[in-house]
Amino acid sequence: MEGKEEDVRLGTNKFSERQPIGTAAQGSDDKDYKEPPPAPLFEPGELKSWSFYRAGIAEFMATFLFLYITILTIMGVNKSVSKCTTVGIQGIAWSFGGMIFALVYCTAGISGGHINPAVTFGLFLARKLSLTRALFYMVMQCLGAICGAGVVKGFQKTLYMGTGGGANVVAPGYTKGDGLGAEIVGTFVLVYTVFSATDAKRNARDSHVPILAPLPIGFAVFLVHLATIPITGTGINPARSLGAAIIYNRRHAWSDQWIFWVGPFIGAALAAIYHQVVIRAIPFKSRS
Amino acid sequence: MEGKEEDVRLGTNKFSERQPIGTAAQGSDDKDYKEPPPAPLFEPGELKSWSFYRAGIAEFMATFLFLYITILTIMGVNKSVSKCTTVGIQGIAWSFGGMIFALVYCTAGISGGHINPAVTFGLFLARKLSLTRALFYMVMQCLGAICGAGVVKGFQKTLYMGTGGGANVVAPGYTKGDGLGAEIVGTFVLVYTVFSATDAKRNARDSHVPILAPLPIGFAVFLVHLATIPITGTGINPARSLGAAIIYNRRHAWSDQWIFWVGPFIGAALAAIYHQVVIRAIPFKSRS
Amino acid sequence: MEGKEEDVRLGTNKFSERQPIGTAAQGSDDKDYKEPPPAPLFEPGELKSWSFYRAGIAEFMATFLFLYITILTIMGVNKSVSKCTTVGIQGIAWSFGGMIFALVYCTAGISGGHINPAVTFGLFLARKLSLTRALFYMVMQCLGAICGAGVVKGFQKTLYMGTGGGANVVAPGYTKGDGLGAEIVGTFVLVYTVFSATDAKRNARDSHVPILAPLPIGFAVFLVHLATIPITGTGINPARSLGAAIIYNRRHAWSDQWIFWVGPFIGAALAAIYHQVVIRAIPFKSRS
Amino acid sequence: MEGKEEDVRLGTNKFSERQPIGTAAQGSDDKDYKEPPPAPLFEPGELKSWSFYRAGIAEFMATFLFLYITILTIMGVNKSVSKCTTVGIQGIAWSFGGMIFALVYCTAGISGGHINPAVTFGLFLARKLSLTRALFYMVMQCLGAICGAGVVKGFQKTLYMGTGGGANVVAPGYTKGDGLGAEIVGTFVLVYTVFSATDAKRNARDSHVPILAPLPIGFAVFLVHLATIPITGTGINPARSLGAAIIYNRRHAWSDQWIFWVGPFIGAALAAIYHQVVIRAIPFKSRS
Repeated sequence: MEGKEEDVRLGTNKFSERQPIGTAAQGSDDKDYKEPPPAPLFEPGELKSWSFYRAGIAEFMATFLFLYITILTIMGVNKSVSKCTTVGIQGIAWSFGGMIFALVYCTAGISGGHINPAVTFGLFLARKLSLTRALFYMVMQCLGAICGAGVVKGFQKTLYMGTGGGANVVAPGYTKGDGLGAEIVGTFVLVYTVFSATDAKRNARDSHVPILAPLPIGFAVFLVHLATIPITGTGINPARSLGAAIIYNRRHAWSDQWIFWVGPFIGAALAAIYHQVVIRAIPFKSRS
Repeated sequence: MEGKEEDVRLGTNKFSERQPIGTAAQGSDDKDYKEPPPAPLFEPGELKSWSFYRAGIAEFMATFLFLYITILTIMGVNKSVSKCTTVGIQGIAWSFGGMIFALVYCTAGISGGHINPAVTFGLFLARKLSLTRALFYMVMQCLGAICGAGVVKGFQKTLYMGTGGGANVVAPGYTKGDGLGAEIVGTFVLVYTVFSATDAKRNARDSHVPILAPLPIGFAVFLVHLATIPITGTGINPARSLGAAIIYNRRHAWSDQWIFWVGPFIGAALAAIYHQVVIRAIPFKSRS
Repeated sequence: MEGKEEDVRLGTNKFSERQPIGTAAQGSDDKDYKEPPPAPLFEPGELKSWSFYRAGIAEFMATFLFLYITILTIMGVNKSVSKCTTVGIQGIAWSFGGMIFALVYCTAGISGGHINPAVTFGLFLARKLSLTRALFYMVMQCLGAICGAGVVKGFQKTLYMGTGGGANVVAPGYTKGDGLGAEIVGTFVLVYTVFSATDAKRNARDSHVPILAPLPIGFAVFLVHLATIPITGTGINPARSLGAAIIYNRRHAWSDQWIFWVGPFIGAALAAIYHQVVIRAIPFKSRS
Repeated sequence: MEGKEEDVRLGTNKFSERQPIGTAAQGSDDKDYKEPPPAPLFEPGELKSWSFYRAGIAEFMATFLFLYITILTIMGVNKSVSKCTTVGIQGIAWSFGGMIFALVYCTAGISGGHINPAVTFGLFLARKLSLTRALFYMVMQCLGAICGAGVVKGFQKTLYMGTGGGANVVAPGYTKGDGLGAEIVGTFVLVYTVFSATDAKRNARDSHVPILAPLPIGFAVFLVHLATIPITGTGINPARSLGAAIIYNRRHAWSDQWIFWVGPFIGAALAAIYHQVVIRAIPFKSRS
């Protein structure tokens, strides 16, 4: 598909009299593409705008619904020993991935659709949002997650506690290091997809790529769950892990909690570095 | 992805000489965006237009096919004890979500693709359609649902009655309050997605988002089923619950029926309020 | 979502100075939209064009790959008693629906992507293609199906014959009438989706709907399989049923074969009538 | 859907004053469409451009993540005898297909998104990329695959070795010829989809088809896995087969390895020939 690269360039050229936005990701036409300036660390004006608080509310609501649906699904699956009379482990993976797809689609225009402190952290490192906003989002995400898991526990306390409460722990047979590694690579897959999908988005607005972006992002979450549910139950989202841990509140959930913060933050940082250094870098321009 | 917000705004600006439709959901450019006026309660002209009746027929047909496919799937799954030789509970969830996806896609241009009295109710509260039209849609949806379930019973009466008839009841181990709560939050997820997807649609026509709208809506239905089939069998659609109850017509189905009307209507109302008050409100405009 | 109707109209108006194609499906702006004239019954010029034969080859190849993948999947599932160590019945449904999605996407630009005599028949009734072309497509589809099933049998003759060969038969417990009804309504769902998706496509080219059309069409096939695999194994495609019957060639497969031709053709005809008479008809135009 | 062909032509004509790119795949308007010239065998300039090396790094990273997620999923499924407490064989198929979808989406703008030496080979035969680039991609893909499988083994060596290591072997009951055939046809399905989706892409840029291309490509991978996991475990990607074989390194994996190189390369070559000779050929132009 190398030909595609050529195509896309042709495409942008065709429109270029009207749409000077180029294809920075391909190392060409850089002159045409204006990277938005990095977000400032503190942007005092934000704190006075309603859209800032609305974005926080949207993150809260999205993370609330995310935990509500996914933890309820986990509870339904875990109460059956054979799993055959439930939606199964694959159904849990669909639940996480599908919710991220739907919620990113719904909140992208309001808050950017993070729903995950690791995603917020990665985008902050790439200077896509201010520190103020990043911290505000993370707090709202964690509050939403706690409320979401709390409502599920409210439905059926005995069942909730008996089925593990959706809390993330490293499974028997795996070391803490394995769990940490799984969280790092898993979050890398997610944040790498977020960067790629939204970057492709930008450079290809002309060819109308953006509309699909929530789909690969949701799929990335689904796929990581397919792979790492047997290892850690899959966190890759510190808010989700914290919310379930606080509501479940058993010792073994707390003792592994650090893994589900350190892992995702390292993974997100690596993805941000990979994207900014390797993919966006244009060190020598002999040809393209 | 905060950067996106900036991008989208750039995008609309770029086109603004030709497409003055702005990005109301982002609290900016409001001057450019003309919210369509609220639909009147009664619009006598509608009753004389063929498109009004055609929309009703399309809602009838869509709800008919919806119940037919989903109840038949349920019957096929429930006749097997182990579920492993069937499409499984996850298959039921796909059936509901997938049908909504396909039917919304097919009828969106004719009737708006509600296929659900709770969706009609939520959109009516937001004044997106007249009271006349809302009531007409609801009647046609219920008639379609009754016919759809009836045809399934016609195939195999014994099997239909023996497998629960697809009727919604609160599962043993859960209180009626749990069932009501599950219906409220579940319908909130669905109607919240409908509002977000079609609003994003509006503000982002320029960037061609609309085409995906039926996909997150269908996914929302799928995800709610993954989570709440173990609690109520998942209603979140009063026409679907009524149709199955009328055709199944056993006492325990009727005694819970109110839950599947009160719950979805409350959930839809909350989603309409959330969207109109929080997401669309622009109280102070110091910045954006 | 009634508001959508208004939106779409606004959308088309906005562009109307450049793109006069209107929204016939909505009963308005008919003056702007030019329905392509009905295809002639015989179009002698076709027979001299390479694109006519290429379309036939594409239909052959697509139906060949369709049967190959789906029958191989069925064979893999049926050889296991418990199904838990296979992709399961749901996997079979994905196989049929997913292949139709991918193949419609791949061949839509070459032959229109029918891959199914019932679809060809329905579109012929709506005068979307000539009789010559319809018959040529059907022959190529049947030949492709026979070859596809034949290759699967070639892999493992004993296993193929022992697992039912993917042939469609009415399941024990259901009458022939049930099977016929299931085929009629199932094919109606498919051809209804084809008409809606490609019509929406036309009227909404301006808003870029077409790209999703293969997705609801593939989903329709998936959903009908979820519902009716327990009844007939799901035909809704006479070429698929014929191909498997010829290669399997056992008596009980042949005795039900008529159901898988009569049912789909009736269903396709009903969908064509519904679409042309109800959806496209614009009898009185007092308002819209 | 024959009418579509007409439609699309209308569509392109409508725009033709601005977008001269035509619909070569339909055998008409050829004068409007400029096929990009075939890529040269050696393009010395490439070796000096950063985008060339970045593309290789992107292929390495994508194949690394591909193997990591998929082999980890296989390990999770295979450690359970009943599969019912895992994501199941269907989950493995989703894992392969979903990763290809997400990764093609993410890397299409950087390297073309091959992630598979057979795809690279097919596109090279169609002269879409230079020999230099093709060889460089293949080496990077194999290195990425080896690293990906290696990391999985690093998590749990005993479990990895005990569950087959994700290595491709011909299953008992099938001959080597069956395995070779399954790989040939399976790769044909994949590369046929790649050619069709990216060609449709080109001719239909005007109607905005390209954005969906990664979806049918991912689905093709998913579907081939549904069908041929019981036969060979499904290769259709020599890098994936080599990576698992090197890390697993048991005799029976090596003895079948040739099948997973010869098969995919033959399948890719057939798909390239089919597409270039049948679909793109326009031998006599009496009419269209």
